[in-house]
Amino acid sequence: MAEQDGPRVTLAAIAEAAGVSLSTISKVLNGRSDVSPGTRARIERLLQEHGYVRRGAARGESRAELIELVFPELDPIWSMELIDGVETVAKAHGLSVVLTVSGNRHAPDADWIDGVLRRRPAGVVLVFSELAAEYRERLRSRAIPFVIVDPAGDPSPDVPSVGSANWSGGLAATRHLIELGHTMIAAITGPEDMMCSLARLDGYRSAMNSAGLPVAAEWERFGDFHVTGGRDRAEELLALPERPTAIFAGSDLQALGVLDAARTAGLRVPEDLSVVGYDDIPVARWIAPRLTTVHQPLKRMGEEAALLALRLADEPAAATPRMDLATHLVVRESTAPPA
Amino acid sequence: MAEQDGPRVTLAAIAEAAGVSLSTISKVLNGRSDVSPGTRARIERLLQEHGYVRRGAARGESRAELIELVFPELDPIWSMELIDGVETVAKAHGLSVVLTVSGNRHAPDADWIDGVLRRRPAGVVLVFSELAAEYRERLRSRAIPFVIVDPAGDPSPDVPSVGSANWSGGLAATRHLIELGHTMIAAITGPEDMMCSLARLDGYRSAMNSAGLPVAAEWERFGDFHVTGGRDRAEELLALPERPTAIFAGSDLQALGVLDAARTAGLRVPEDLSVVGYDDIPVARWIAPRLTTVHQPLKRMGEEAALLALRLADEPAAATPRMDLATHLVVRESTAPPA
Repeated sequence: MAEQDGPRVTLAAIAEAAGVSLSTISKVLNGRSDVSPGTRARIERLLQEHGYVRRGAARGESRAELIELVFPELDPIWSMELIDGVETVAKAHGLSVVLTVSGNRHAPDADWIDGVLRRRPAGVVLVFSELAAEYRERLRSRAIPFVIVDPAGDPSPDVPSVGSANWSGGLAATRHLIELGHTMIAAITGPEDMMCSLARLDGYRSAMNSAGLPVAAEWERFGDFHVTGGRDRAEELLALPERPTAIFAGSDLQALGVLDAARTAGLRVPEDLSVVGYDDIPVARWIAPRLTTVHQPLKRMGEEAALLALRLADEPAAATPRMDLATHLVVRESTAPPA
Repeated sequence: MAEQDGPRVTLAAIAEAAGVSLSTISKVLNGRSDVSPGTRARIERLLQEHGYVRRGAARGESRAELIELVFPELDPIWSMELIDGVETVAKAHGLSVVLTVSGNRHAPDADWIDGVLRRRPAGVVLVFSELAAEYRERLRSRAIPFVIVDPAGDPSPDVPSVGSANWSGGLAATRHLIELGHTMIAAITGPEDMMCSLARLDGYRSAMNSAGLPVAAEWERFGDFHVTGGRDRAEELLALPERPTAIFAGSDLQALGVLDAARTAGLRVPEDLSVVGYDDIPVARWIAPRLTTVHQPLKRMGEEAALLALRLADEPAAATPRMDLATHLVVRESTAPPA
């Protein structure tokens, strides 16, 4: 989002180049729907070619009282911490939060962007791994700053983003189990196409390798991040001829599934099986046994993303900021030395 | 929100009566801040006296693409189901959700209302027990429909609201324990000044009385609805000389606290102590033992409230709708016959 040095292009020049009226340009800038798709595309292209950036759109206008937060889906627990973080910053700045659920985990749906251009928020926080170049350009040309909160750990290099230290989290969880005396440690992680899954698994592998412990291929399992994912993968692990004595789960919800599978198999936690989760959602403190887990600062990630978006509104940065917040292990009751 | 029969007052007449320009009236109508408090109050009073209702404010204007959702606080689990419900309806109607955390559980803060008047949403859903008459008038005069989601069970009679059947829930939970053979059943409920606490407790009492079972005064406890509230009250109950064999908790979070207190006291659930929760939040299915609980349809309450607000925008009703959605018992693993 570099500042322009040369003389700025005027909207009149763009209107002339596009062969349309100034009011049509204005409609496109403001996300109005009463412009034909062809004309809109032509104007968007010209705006981009001329590097047009709206002056003061996000500051000093009465409409810039919103901050947008976009999720691919609402998770019953996980999403709330991010919402809470964004809401806390919004409130401190006298802004309201617009919450949209749209698209899949890779990108919001196309119809979302027009609403944002109409509303002209002070900033946008997106809980997605990426944002299509087309959307980025449209937000930039309207001077609407955006930040990606990316727990999945795979940010585009040219988009400001906030994540957390997934590899270090996997390392810390596994080291803790090794220090307790475990040698047969299995890992369940998230979907294979999510970088956070791979980073946590690599942290596990590095901890095992550093300790000179072998990792059987069958001890590494990919699953979804939900309770059922943890339960299904744990059932497979606990049925192995060489049963692991500890399982590092890729999320607390997965860990709940592991606890459930252990119970079904007649295993006590932590006496017969140690379990480490990931995320430190509130429920980790409420269940029995209280879950040892890697704290992922979700609320702080929401706060930092909102603050960064607001800061970018004031001072567009030449470099693209990426912030990885630290994770740390919280030892509770679900881990113990092996029997 | 009755329709007016007579001729409608014009803004020009109100401007004349207030001794201000039409543009000042317009500023007040749109929640702009650049009007002195005295002038604003005078104009609001005149708008109310003349029963002014803006025409078509919520329909057919480009700004009516938002629905507002206001909470006193974000609960890590409980709030998400309501958000999910409102978001589902908003999405189906092409609307975005503005989320505001404001005030205490009785009412939003004063600064919230100006933002709403500026944004002119299609509807407002408030998770509060009441809404001050002044706010109600200001929303009504701008033709912004509002609905209260009121899990606390104490709606103003003149505000559209959505709640759930608290008394029936308390009755069903207690009957279930009685049918299992329990006679010494204690109840933990929420704060004494919340009608839902009283309604659930009264349901418990009625079930006990109908079965000819005595209720010791010390078996009824008021606490906050969180984990610690359940834990603290359960510790007191389990320390009684005549220990109850079953506890009906006023929320699932309280029930988690009860499970914790039982574990600390060396009691097995359900063998030594049966526990029933209230709400049926997702975690009730994830923990061991899976929680028997009263299902409160929080997501559906959010959906119905949003739908009602949008319906009121189209057809302002003469009568004030109040909708109590049914609750029902979900029997899982935390209840069993007494030892």
